[in-house]
Amino acid sequence: MAAPEFLDIAKRVNNWGRWGSDDEIGTLNLVTDEVVRAAAATVRTGRRVALAVPLSQQGIQTGLIPGRVNPLHSMIAVNWEMFGPGTVATSDDVVTMGLQAGTHWDALTHISRAGFVYNGRPADTITPHRGAAVSGIEKIPYLISRGVLLDVAKAHGVDRLPADHAVVPADLEAAEELAGIEVRAGDIVLVRTGQMQLFLAGNRDGYGMPTPGLSVRCPEWFHARNVAAVATDTLTFEIFPPEIEGMWLAVHALHLVEMGMLQGQNWNLEPLAIACAEESRYEFLLSAMPEPFVGATGTPVAPVAVF
Amino acid sequence: MAAPEFLDIAKRVNNWGRWGSDDEIGTLNLVTDEVVRAAAATVRTGRRVALAVPLSQQGIQTGLIPGRVNPLHSMIAVNWEMFGPGTVATSDDVVTMGLQAGTHWDALTHISRAGFVYNGRPADTITPHRGAAVSGIEKIPYLISRGVLLDVAKAHGVDRLPADHAVVPADLEAAEELAGIEVRAGDIVLVRTGQMQLFLAGNRDGYGMPTPGLSVRCPEWFHARNVAAVATDTLTFEIFPPEIEGMWLAVHALHLVEMGMLQGQNWNLEPLAIACAEESRYEFLLSAMPEPFVGATGTPVAPVAVF
Amino acid sequence: MAAPEFLDIAKRVNNWGRWGSDDEIGTLNLVTDEVVRAAAATVRTGRRVALAVPLSQQGIQTGLIPGRVNPLHSMIAVNWEMFGPGTVATSDDVVTMGLQAGTHWDALTHISRAGFVYNGRPADTITPHRGAAVSGIEKIPYLISRGVLLDVAKAHGVDRLPADHAVVPADLEAAEELAGIEVRAGDIVLVRTGQMQLFLAGNRDGYGMPTPGLSVRCPEWFHARNVAAVATDTLTFEIFPPEIEGMWLAVHALHLVEMGMLQGQNWNLEPLAIACAEESRYEFLLSAMPEPFVGATGTPVAPVAVF
Amino acid sequence: MAAPEFLDIAKRVNNWGRWGSDDEIGTLNLVTDEVVRAAAATVRTGRRVALAVPLSQQGIQTGLIPGRVNPLHSMIAVNWEMFGPGTVATSDDVVTMGLQAGTHWDALTHISRAGFVYNGRPADTITPHRGAAVSGIEKIPYLISRGVLLDVAKAHGVDRLPADHAVVPADLEAAEELAGIEVRAGDIVLVRTGQMQLFLAGNRDGYGMPTPGLSVRCPEWFHARNVAAVATDTLTFEIFPPEIEGMWLAVHALHLVEMGMLQGQNWNLEPLAIACAEESRYEFLLSAMPEPFVGATGTPVAPVAVF
Repeated sequence: MAAPEFLDIAKRVNNWGRWGSDDEIGTLNLVTDEVVRAAAATVRTGRRVALAVPLSQQGIQTGLIPGRVNPLHSMIAVNWEMFGPGTVATSDDVVTMGLQAGTHWDALTHISRAGFVYNGRPADTITPHRGAAVSGIEKIPYLISRGVLLDVAKAHGVDRLPADHAVVPADLEAAEELAGIEVRAGDIVLVRTGQMQLFLAGNRDGYGMPTPGLSVRCPEWFHARNVAAVATDTLTFEIFPPEIEGMWLAVHALHLVEMGMLQGQNWNLEPLAIACAEESRYEFLLSAMPEPFVGATGTPVAPVAVF
Repeated sequence: MAAPEFLDIAKRVNNWGRWGSDDEIGTLNLVTDEVVRAAAATVRTGRRVALAVPLSQQGIQTGLIPGRVNPLHSMIAVNWEMFGPGTVATSDDVVTMGLQAGTHWDALTHISRAGFVYNGRPADTITPHRGAAVSGIEKIPYLISRGVLLDVAKAHGVDRLPADHAVVPADLEAAEELAGIEVRAGDIVLVRTGQMQLFLAGNRDGYGMPTPGLSVRCPEWFHARNVAAVATDTLTFEIFPPEIEGMWLAVHALHLVEMGMLQGQNWNLEPLAIACAEESRYEFLLSAMPEPFVGATGTPVAPVAVF
Repeated sequence: MAAPEFLDIAKRVNNWGRWGSDDEIGTLNLVTDEVVRAAAATVRTGRRVALAVPLSQQGIQTGLIPGRVNPLHSMIAVNWEMFGPGTVATSDDVVTMGLQAGTHWDALTHISRAGFVYNGRPADTITPHRGAAVSGIEKIPYLISRGVLLDVAKAHGVDRLPADHAVVPADLEAAEELAGIEVRAGDIVLVRTGQMQLFLAGNRDGYGMPTPGLSVRCPEWFHARNVAAVATDTLTFEIFPPEIEGMWLAVHALHLVEMGMLQGQNWNLEPLAIACAEESRYEFLLSAMPEPFVGATGTPVAPVAVF
Repeated sequence: MAAPEFLDIAKRVNNWGRWGSDDEIGTLNLVTDEVVRAAAATVRTGRRVALAVPLSQQGIQTGLIPGRVNPLHSMIAVNWEMFGPGTVATSDDVVTMGLQAGTHWDALTHISRAGFVYNGRPADTITPHRGAAVSGIEKIPYLISRGVLLDVAKAHGVDRLPADHAVVPADLEAAEELAGIEVRAGDIVLVRTGQMQLFLAGNRDGYGMPTPGLSVRCPEWFHARNVAAVATDTLTFEIFPPEIEGMWLAVHALHLVEMGMLQGQNWNLEPLAIACAEESRYEFLLSAMPEPFVGATGTPVAPVAVF
């Protein structure tokens, strides 16, 4: 794929202006009340699965991405009898962390290209002193919809895709067929590669990169189906190193900048894959609310799937 | 109320051992699959309401609680062409914050009394170097259930309760009657005082204290109904200064230590009250997932109600 | 003073290129071995005076400067028997703080004007992802020289200058005369206004602004004397609000950008003033080493004067 | 050495009560005005050498000591035209760091043994909510004295001591002889092993441990000479793993708890060794001021030696 081809795709998937020039949330506009109602209607057993990895110094980050530090949790009070000896005692804590250190959403403003962020706004609307003035993560009011697991690893008959596997539309469709459902407008699509198994097994370096991930061919597929958001079980979301030399973070640019579609990374899809197989059902209600950090370009998230 | 009376209540609401000696999550055991299924069935319109206040330096904390700092958000990259000139650019950020600075859940270990935390464990299971070894917030796997708004302010015909109003069981029942529903096992009960209006109007000092809040008479009421968790729109949860001199954080101690019931504070219930009135419905699906900070005694939360 | 006049001053005090095009430390080049030798020779009694204010949440910042947070100190271990029960126990701590929150040095890169920082380098050599690539504070190898206290308040016969007092060269010269010494090349000049008394008395709001401070007329005076660095006992260094409407941080710009001269703020000069009076001596050895934060535009400093 | 022998040493070096029951600074009492005067008199050339390692994410910590994080520096403003377009622009930054992450002083309260800290105070004077109520690092008013380099590596004719080399008094005396000076009361003694070369060469893991360092035989030697403070070029100060199995941090306990003597770690003594050799002089004025973090059990320090 040459740069012109990238630009062609960018043009085809572009959503700038689609929801008005003031829009700051992109494809989340596709999650209508009706979509949410239908999502809630998928709940049949009440079984729940949590998708976040624990937040601690033993988290996912290894120093590869400068400054994106694992959560440092420290206590500011431990059994402190604040009101005097013999009174009830309080414990309290603080944390310092990279907002994208663990299981997280990229905000639309996580990426700019050629000086622009989503909806044609200048990239310099992001500044160090106030963060993202537009499309900061706090602008996402809620994020709950139908979730669909596309278990690409399972569709390939493996536990974990090899590191050089670029997930292409045919993979997504094979996973759809395995799931027996069709991705539709407003869905949050979770693409499982199995890469998270490395992290869970304690292999942080192996987990990071090289890694399987989405191909630059996928954004058009999501665009055609009017997907609301996509998350994966990898650090980089897209295949890394990139499938085409020098085509850095092309999927990021297409999703975040052109489509205005949130991306999730480091989601633990292993227990979800088990649950889906056991329930024989790959759709569920998915709640994955961003924490409303003002001006932030990402946020930790603790998603929960309900069957 | 004398200390002996407090101890009598403590005895009556105590849940230690109720779910086994290994239990770390308390009343959340009451949120069964069946409860969640029924909660999802309350969704009729798909309307959503978010309940978290924005996370920023202009947050709720005023320095009253030492070390509980408002979120400090800073950028570690702004439109950084990480892979060389002309490549896509990334923005990334970090945060330092008190885990209980904004809209949050207290973990069960936020409070100890007489050397014990929930389920009869010694308080010194909480240490500065690893936080809460048991009943840290990461032990709460998921938190989604039926939510019920008890709009006590509205039941009293006011926008906001006066600062010296201790919410008693009769208030809760008046709000139930207004709502036309009954609180039942596994519910997450949201008690509205209207105090959040002060914060939303920019009056941070007024918001903090004195403040209306729950009376020490309420825990038995929640216990009798097998409530799973309770949240309010105030800083201190319970009336503050306390209704009985020297009875510091008595409700905290009863809920967290004796009952093992999570508490939420600083929830923005104003838009929820409007939605409930408009929908003529005070029950909804409520998702309020804790972020899994390992060993933490609290967590920010971004709750969402779905009608 | 009109803008052209400012530009005239800027031209007269400009040191760009004076120590070569590669220079990153500006007037600190004036602190030669000989200067330091002479500074050490001023020591006669061995009396020492420390000039930093304590670092804590009760520090100088009040929220006026967004993000410049007071130090948040928290423990990551308290008497932790790391090697097993009965072994020696360790206590350890972390801090989050604005580098310019307390007693500090501005790095030369703290200010840019018209797109440039000191020595004619483009301002965009400062980036969020690596800070100041040139003239970061870590480039200052050492900062120890002769210190001179110019006690302007005392020279005016007051404890504390009024808030609208712009310290002009005549004030500096009156203080020199009071001190009985002449400022010379390589000196670190400490200008006392007495404003720190407000902070020490617990009046943080009063301390901040309005505040007396240096006039835009001073930089030429320091330039003529080849001063190495200047510090004061105020938050803003220069008079604030500025003496000429709209002339924001003019002294900062002249010192940091044009001259390449470090500035210190929030220095506690009260005990020093007492010592100088008692010793009848306004010169001393001054050690005020920056902490070598890589890429930083400021640093906490714990200065010590030795008589 | 058996535990009784350790207790015998502890008894012999114990300084509790030596400077009164209220004392919080221990052997720093030995740095009298006279000592400082003499220290200043050692300055002959004005040559300066800085001893701190740079503070950044690429710092010394590797995760070995939980929570002791390398400095995370981030910008809260970059060339921000705070007062409107065209005005001077400011850059500002914040940091989160372990206070003992880089070149640092241990406060006396960094270690407790058998429930006590220096001067017989109970260890529980250190609490998570306020840190060290006594002997916090802010109690050290100033730290400037004569410095003496004991270049043990050089005295052994090597660049760097092997990892299993426990520095014993005979080593210190050989280095004294090499230096041609005698350690005396009030000195700050810097013991060079050469271990820092590993860190400087980029080998962070090798630098940490195993490491050469002080033997448990040294404290008596320092005690006899009335040394004021000791610093080294290693992570652990004392040999690690310890020379006697199970004798964890014995030197720490003797210095900090029994003697009340500050310890410095991670000091870069390489350039100092070169300077001493070139100057043929192993004494110098040493300024090593702690940052006054209230209640802290350690502090970053940027020491400077002046010849």
